[in-house]
Order: sequence, then C-alpha cells, then structure tokens
Amino acid sequence: MYRDPVQSLEAPLLPSSATAMRPLRVGMIGIGTVGAGTFRVLARNQALIAGRAGRGIKLVVVCARSLARAMSVVGKDVALTNDPMQVATHPDVDVLVEAAGGTGPARDWVLAAIRAGKHVVTANKALLAEHGNEIFAAARQHGVAVAYEGAVAVSIPIVKALREGLTANRIEWVAGIINGTTNFILSKMRDEGVGFAEALAQAQALGYAEADPTFDIEGIDAAHKISLLAANAFGMPVRFADAQVEGITALQGLDVACAEQLGFRIKLLGVAKRRKAGDAEGNVEGVELRVQPALVPATHLLAHVNGSMNAVMVKGDASGVTMYYGAGAGSEQTASAVIADLVDVARLDGTHAGQRVPHLGFHPQAVDEQLAVLPRAAVHTRHYLRVPVHSAQQIEAVGAWLAAQHVPVLQVALAHDKALPPGSGPQVLVLTDAVAQSTVDLAVFALAAHPAVAGPVVTLRVETLEG
Amino acid sequence: MYRDPVQSLEAPLLPSSATAMRPLRVGMIGIGTVGAGTFRVLARNQALIAGRAGRGIKLVVVCARSLARAMSVVGKDVALTNDPMQVATHPDVDVLVEAAGGTGPARDWVLAAIRAGKHVVTANKALLAEHGNEIFAAARQHGVAVAYEGAVAVSIPIVKALREGLTANRIEWVAGIINGTTNFILSKMRDEGVGFAEALAQAQALGYAEADPTFDIEGIDAAHKISLLAANAFGMPVRFADAQVEGITALQGLDVACAEQLGFRIKLLGVAKRRKAGDAEGNVEGVELRVQPALVPATHLLAHVNGSMNAVMVKGDASGVTMYYGAGAGSEQTASAVIADLVDVARLDGTHAGQRVPHLGFHPQAVDEQLAVLPRAAVHTRHYLRVPVHSAQQIEAVGAWLAAQHVPVLQVALAHDKALPPGSGPQVLVLTDAVAQSTVDLAVFALAAHPAVAGPVVTLRVETLEG
Repeated sequence: MYRDPVQSLEAPLLPSSATAMRPLRVGMIGIGTVGAGTFRVLARNQALIAGRAGRGIKLVVVCARSLARAMSVVGKDVALTNDPMQVATHPDVDVLVEAAGGTGPARDWVLAAIRAGKHVVTANKALLAEHGNEIFAAARQHGVAVAYEGAVAVSIPIVKALREGLTANRIEWVAGIINGTTNFILSKMRDEGVGFAEALAQAQALGYAEADPTFDIEGIDAAHKISLLAANAFGMPVRFADAQVEGITALQGLDVACAEQLGFRIKLLGVAKRRKAGDAEGNVEGVELRVQPALVPATHLLAHVNGSMNAVMVKGDASGVTMYYGAGAGSEQTASAVIADLVDVARLDGTHAGQRVPHLGFHPQAVDEQLAVLPRAAVHTRHYLRVPVHSAQQIEAVGAWLAAQHVPVLQVALAHDKALPPGSGPQVLVLTDAVAQSTVDLAVFALAAHPAVAGPVVTLRVETLEG
Repeated sequence: MYRDPVQSLEAPLLPSSATAMRPLRVGMIGIGTVGAGTFRVLARNQALIAGRAGRGIKLVVVCARSLARAMSVVGKDVALTNDPMQVATHPDVDVLVEAAGGTGPARDWVLAAIRAGKHVVTANKALLAEHGNEIFAAARQHGVAVAYEGAVAVSIPIVKALREGLTANRIEWVAGIINGTTNFILSKMRDEGVGFAEALAQAQALGYAEADPTFDIEGIDAAHKISLLAANAFGMPVRFADAQVEGITALQGLDVACAEQLGFRIKLLGVAKRRKAGDAEGNVEGVELRVQPALVPATHLLAHVNGSMNAVMVKGDASGVTMYYGAGAGSEQTASAVIADLVDVARLDGTHAGQRVPHLGFHPQAVDEQLAVLPRAAVHTRHYLRVPVHSAQQIEAVGAWLAAQHVPVLQVALAHDKALPPGSGPQVLVLTDAVAQSTVDLAVFALAAHPAVAGPVVTLRVETLEG
C-alpha cells in the first residue's frame, strides 16, 4: 500500500542539506515497555512513517542490561551494548531515545548526548521535572532538540498542542486528569463503592498500578506532568519543587458518595492557573501549581473520563476551552508519542530541528524567570466540606458559624443515609463559593473546637473548570 | 511581563538565514469575522506571540471591500487596498492569510500567492475541499506552506494532531462532531424536545446558524472537513466529491426520543474509516467517507459534546483512541488556529516552512492515489430502524421478517408512549449488529410492502466508536 519513500523519493526535500535523505539514526537506552513498544511500532509502520517523515527512521544501537533479552526484541540487525554512554555518544547516532527511566543516571546520559550534538527524545517526566531546566539550557547551547511528548499523557499530543497549536493564546489555565492509575482507582471507588485500599489492590492485580504505587497515588507523577505543562503554558521555568501535591491515599469512600449526592465526581486533578494575587491591590501575578483530588461537576466532560484514561483541558484567551483525551499509559501508546517526536526531528535536518520550537514553548528571552508559584494560602477555589456532627439539628449552626468565619457558603445539606457507612453519625455537607485557601484552613482549624463537631472535618477543592 | 524578543533576542535563532529575525509580514484578504479576530488577537498578544515564535508577526496590507470599515478595524498603520491580487502578490508580504471565504476567486488569489512564492494560511474548508489537490500541488512545486488548521474545528489543533502528533500510527478511523450549528440544533431537539424547524429558528436567532443555513444543516460543511481529515489520516487525495452526505433536515424529534429510550443520542457525525471490503475475499481496501446523523451510546464521551462545541476522535493502531474537543466556530477561536499556522511559518525561514510537513501529512510519493471512497452499499455499521406498525402485536413479525432478510437483529422494542407524539401509532424499534448498507436498504425497501407496516420506515446508523 505504501511505497517506501526512502528508496523512491525523487527530489530531496531539503535541498540545502546533503544528508537529509539519509535515514534518521536512533540510539536507544533501555528496551523495556517504552523501548520495546517503540521498536515494534517503528518496525510495523516503517513505510507509513517514512511516507510521513520523508525519510526512514532506523534503530541502530540499543543499550540494555540483558543483551540476550534485548536481542530477542530487536533481532540481530541492531548493535547492542551494556554501556549507556556508548549509545549517548555513538558516532552513528543522530537521536538518543532515553527509555530507561530514573533521574540521576538518565540526566548524565542525556547531557552527554546533548554535548555530543545528538537530539534527545524521552518520555521520562521525572527526569524533566527534576532536571529539565538544566537539560533544556544545555540543549539550547548545543542547538539540539529535546522532545518529550510522551512525558505527559503519552499518546495525546498535548505538549504539541501547547507549544504549537495554541501559540496565539494567553493561556489562563491548564487542568487535567494526568495519572491513569489514580483515575482507575477513583473510577472503581465510585462505580463499585469500594474503599481506596481495595481499589488499589484491584488496580495492582490488573496491572494498572505498580507494586510500589507511591509516585502515582501520592500525586507525584501528576505533579511532574503539570509542572511541564505549566512551563509550556505560561513561559516559566519548570517549577516542580514548588508544586503543592496531595494524593488520594487519604480519600474516603464516604466523600466519593457525598460528592455524588451533591452532583459531583472526585478526580485527581493537576491544575496550573495564572492569577493576579498577592498584594493588597491584587497586582502580583503568580501561578497556582497543584495536584489534588477535587470535585468536578457530574455533567462536566472531565467527569466522564473514566478508567485509566487521561484528559487535559486548556483555557486560552482566544481559543476558549479545548480538551485532549486519550490513554494515560501503555507501551505502544507511549511509542506513538516517542515516534512523533522522532518524525519531527526527521522532517528537518539537524540544525533546524533543534531550533524550530523552543524546548518549553517560549524563547529564553521571553521566559519570565520571576513568575512564581503562589503559596497554598493564596490558592482560590470553591470548596467542599464534610463536617461530622453530633445531631442533624446542628446543620444550621455549622453553616452560620462558617459564614461568620468569612467562608462564602453556597449550600448546606445533610448527607443521605445511603451515602453513610453503617454506624456513621450525621454529616453536614457544605459547598462554598471561591475563597482563599487560607480562609478555609483557618475556619476548619477553628471549627474543630466547635461543640457541634463530632470528628475530623474533611475539605476538598471544587473545580468548575468553566470556559 | 513579556519582553519583546524582536528587539531583545541576543543570538539569531537560525544563523543560516539572515532574514530570520525580521518580523513575518502578513497580507490579508478579507477583514470580516476571521480577519478581524486574527488582527485583534495578533495585536493583543503581540509580545507573547513573538516570545513563542522567535520573531514578530506583522499585518502589513489588507484587502477589503470597504476601506473605511477596514481602517476602523486595523487602524492607519496597515496598508489597504480593494484589489485582492495586489495583496496576494505584494512584494512586502511573506504570507497570505485568505480570510474572504468562497471558492472560485479565493482559488485564484491563493494560486497567485503560491506562484509568487508566498506561504498561505486559510481557514476556508470549502476552498480546500474543492480545490485542495490543485492548490497543494502548486504549493509543493513552489516550496511554500499552505496551512489550514482553522479549516477543521477552528481552535482545536486536530490537523496538527493528525499530521504531526499521530505520525507513528496507522489510522483506523476518524469520527467527529465537526459542525457547531447542527450540534447546537441537535442538542436543543434533545434537551427541549422541540422539532428541527423550531431548533433551527432558535439557532438562527442566537447567531449559531446563518440566514442561509444550507451548508451546515445539509452536512456539506462537515463533509468538507471530514474529507480534509481523511486525506491527512490515510494518505489519500482530498475526495470531497465522493463523500456520502446526509444532513439533519429530515430528522424527526420522534427518533431523537426513541434513540434516547434505547440509550443513545443522535449526533451529526463525519466519519472516515479505512476498511477491507469489496471483493469476495474482502481484500480490496477502501475508505468510508460519510456524514450523517447517527446514534451514539449515551455513555460515550461524544454524546456529552453539546451546544455548538466540536470534538474529533481518532483511532490509531499504536495510540488507541484519542479525542480533541473545543469550539467549532467563532472569531477569535478561528484566529487562534490562523495565528498558530503563522507561528509555524515564523519559526522557520521560508524554505523550510514550506517543506517541513507535507500539506496533507504524507509526502507525495507515499500518497495512495488509488485509495478510493467505498460506495454506500459497502458501508458497514450497526443500524437503528423505526417501523410504524398497525398493532403492537406485530413486533415479533417485524423482527422475524428482518432476520429472514439477513438483517442481524440484536434488539427489538416498542417505543414507549412518552416518546410518541399525540395520535401516533405503535412503533417497532430495531437495533442491528454491523451489516452492509446494501442489506439494510434492500430489507427496508421490501419491508415497505409488509402488511404489518403502517408508514415509512426510518433507518439511522449506530456508531459505537469503540477503541
């Protein structure tokens, strides 16, 4: 069906470069889930990909711990080594695909490749969240591309959407479900009424959660991703270290049910929002950068993103709201993004590929180094509160007391009996209008001493994510 | 906040080109909704856009019918003319933005600009659906870009997703809600139980439908768009003339209600699906290219795309299903796409911008000129049938009769009374498994003569759009 353009292209695409028609030569470190998927898709869709890229893309050398296992994946035509640095600096390699994971050693390999003039493609969000600023600076200096579409929501081209598709816009916010494991767990908790521990066990049994799920369930993986998206959206450095991160380990099934009663679903959201805040005039601009379980209206499109799927919404001043949906993990799903990055490099000769799109979407002179992450106290959202009380009659006292503490109460309700586990006392549910986190924190701190209150008060943010 | 990199960039981005840092100079034909929106967003986000593009983007000349009106939009610093050809071939113009609409004259302007070595950006789907093959061939010959992100689902970067984001994939199908007017009408019909005529009148009153809504409600606009998406997805020429197009003018509120009863919603879908079909062995490959109102499961994400919003789903062999959602129309929403195309051009010097991404995603040698649109008879989907009968007892006869005609009946039901308008007789509802359209057409033709049948049989396709 597809003729192979590597052989059949009649005219060079880039007449200025004598090497443009040579296949793009790839070296890969790691041949696990991501690496093997990339090799498999490159092989299966070889002619199709060359037809799109204008030249072939060829894996020439792989570094793996077990050479026998690597050969069982890539066959005998690909050189094999145990030495990652050999791949990173190999004279026959145009692009390094870092598919090993981890941060420290991966940083060294990637920097070595950059210094050797290689482009780099990686899906390693931890690496870029922790060392991205250093890596991108080195890549700029050496005029090479560091592409990472697979680092956020794998096959969904969200990095490309922010860096290229929405360049006309002042981005107001980015928010999304960007961790498949936790979305799978939250979907189970809602659909089957099970608690967190049981849902996690099911996710592990089905391969949706790793044996050590810490990075996922504590929100760290999502924070890696939202930090990268925020940098591309707002023209700021990667500020992972400043992100406020809360996972789902403390989330109770009771709150999933109570949220449902109020017309909401709970999703683990990564949110990056640019806002005026801070001084008395509200003239200091900052960025809310945060991951936490939040209530989303049940009628909202994000509420219908279930199982291990991901979705990212972006609000631009011209585009309005756009949304990007797809798988959040998977071998070939990640390969789809890794290969898209390789095609981007292949479509231009080396020099231009490294300079076409700035690594974080903005040219260095336009990056606002001063744009900082707002402190937790300044985060401004609607809230959900669940207040255990001794008697249902105390509902009015709780509402009035919160209003007196400057909490803008919109709705007060009692949890229905069917939402409550056996033996549970009455629960007052409160929905607030948008309010500073500091106000909520202080009110909840004081509320703990109120005689009506029978146990720990739970607060969750409510995100309406409106256009 | 953003320093202007046009002045402040220290090192040239593209050292090989002495002209790269000069602002990209834009000529525009038409300063209506799209043109004025583009000017407004370019002006408002000037520094931001330059910070992303690496250089400024400057409107230098505009062609308009009324120069006074044009000046009221763009001010006195932009040259004005009544002569479109002067803009298309202007020596100071690097890129032509065609924002006038229409097909015949727009074709001439665009071809003139291409021959003069200008890049072209347009959101004109009718132009590209009818003359795209000719325009893209000319652009290839002259080494210029013809970019058209705004032609499909305006601000949603779906053309970029197909041409760049999903290049690793063999695309299996593309399906979407790609006309905002009809989606607004269908949402009204469902939510408020009104008929087509009343919903159309409301859409016109609110500005969601034009005075002459033919292109929208007859499905032609959606067919323009799905033809462009199919070309980019499958590596085929633009085959708008071969698309099967059915609008929503004949759709009855009764079927909206009956679909709801069965757990579906009706959406006007553009569908492009690559399939084996045709000869006895099923070895002839072709493309279903069609627009029609179809039943979508109420639990499906596309069923929740309401009002004038658009959404496109793409199934790739590696990526799985991804979806792209956003506004389907609007002045600044379209500008968002037009400017993204301009930034793509600005980020490279002229030569490379025209050659980086092939106009339809595939290099000419990889385009399959033989890949044809399958005839209606070969289209293969599930179906919904509504059969008016004389008596509810005849439900079994209808089901049995259809099964005897080789229609794979999955479910037979009677329409609930509340779905029926006053005075309506009983209606048998049938859901089938996937079956060739030819089988359905023949069975329905014969069914008309069945003694149980009391009126015209309605058939609609059912799209499950599963991964």
